[in-house]
Amino acid sequence: MSLQKPTLLAADFEGVFIPEIWIAVAERTGIEQLRLTTRDISNYDELMQMRLRIIREQNLTIAQIQAIIDELEPLPGAYDFMQWVRTQTQFIILTDSFYQFVAPFMPKLHYPTIFAHMLEIDDKGIISGYHLRTADSKRKAVEAFSAAGFATMATGDSYNDTTMLLRADKGVLFRPPPNVIAEFPQLPVTTEYAELKAHVIAFLNAA
Amino acid sequence: MSLQKPTLLAADFEGVFIPEIWIAVAERTGIEQLRLTTRDISNYDELMQMRLRIIREQNLTIAQIQAIIDELEPLPGAYDFMQWVRTQTQFIILTDSFYQFVAPFMPKLHYPTIFAHMLEIDDKGIISGYHLRTADSKRKAVEAFSAAGFATMATGDSYNDTTMLLRADKGVLFRPPPNVIAEFPQLPVTTEYAELKAHVIAFLNAA
Repeated sequence: MSLQKPTLLAADFEGVFIPEIWIAVAERTGIEQLRLTTRDISNYDELMQMRLRIIREQNLTIAQIQAIIDELEPLPGAYDFMQWVRTQTQFIILTDSFYQFVAPFMPKLHYPTIFAHMLEIDDKGIISGYHLRTADSKRKAVEAFSAAGFATMATGDSYNDTTMLLRADKGVLFRPPPNVIAEFPQLPVTTEYAELKAHVIAFLNAA
Repeated sequence: MSLQKPTLLAADFEGVFIPEIWIAVAERTGIEQLRLTTRDISNYDELMQMRLRIIREQNLTIAQIQAIIDELEPLPGAYDFMQWVRTQTQFIILTDSFYQFVAPFMPKLHYPTIFAHMLEIDDKGIISGYHLRTADSKRKAVEAFSAAGFATMATGDSYNDTTMLLRADKGVLFRPPPNVIAEFPQLPVTTEYAELKAHVIAFLNAA
């Protein structure tokens, strides 16, 4: 019967609820270089400029890329987990992907609130640049939710999620790679939605 | 083809999408004093303490109040407007009501994201206190969205919405009382969802 704070779950998108988009585009187009990630090219801007250069060279339009993405489905169980979470607490997706890329997933997931970045599209429909909302956007969003009076839990799979996981009142890894598990032993590791759900329930009961 | 910011609509809830909850509770219970608002008692805490005292005196439980609220419906046209907005931009409701009061509306509106406050409920199910997330919570939320890199439009009907309306990149009044119209001539006034929709479209096109 304490004076409770309202609660919020902030969640990464790719790798947690949907497949990795660049990997899918690489597979469907056969462009192997689009498989490279920040594990291969650690400088994010260098990586993005390479991706955009390849897309321009191949004359791939945003419409063609969206058609590829539209064939993808959320990961098995993701839909049910997300709809359940929304009945229990506030739920905001924090992704370093782009609104134009995640758009095809939104109707499939009943339009959850999502904080993403923006691609710049030229008059021919080719991606000509990208615009990050802010640097370290996931951590900053979690800090803003905290400043707004929320008790916040966060979940994600990757290195770029760890600053928000550590900043949240509770951070839980979901299907992380071995190096992230090794480097952040203080973060609980989950691989199934049922485990993540148990962490959410424990968080809500403790909040 | 400018580097666009992502967009977000922040909207008040009571008076914009649903009826005024305290008024409805006053009507259904016949407790006239619950009709009083900040127009009658300008100090919000004094008003809330009076409401909670009356509720305790009448032994009204949160379950009984939620049963009253559950009989209310969103305002005519609100559902369609909200579902349309969610296909166009990010949409977050900012209300000075409480999670326990707005809960019955959430399934009816497909669980939009909502920032509200918390009531304290005692072991007998009686409201024993209230907890505001932050002071001036609507304005601060809009400032946080702006700091997160969003171009933000806001809409609301009341005096307590005006700080967020003035702080947003675009603020639009929806069904405001005459004193608010008179005091804030710089804010456009709308009375129908079609007008509000036209303002949203203009905002998205300009962003």
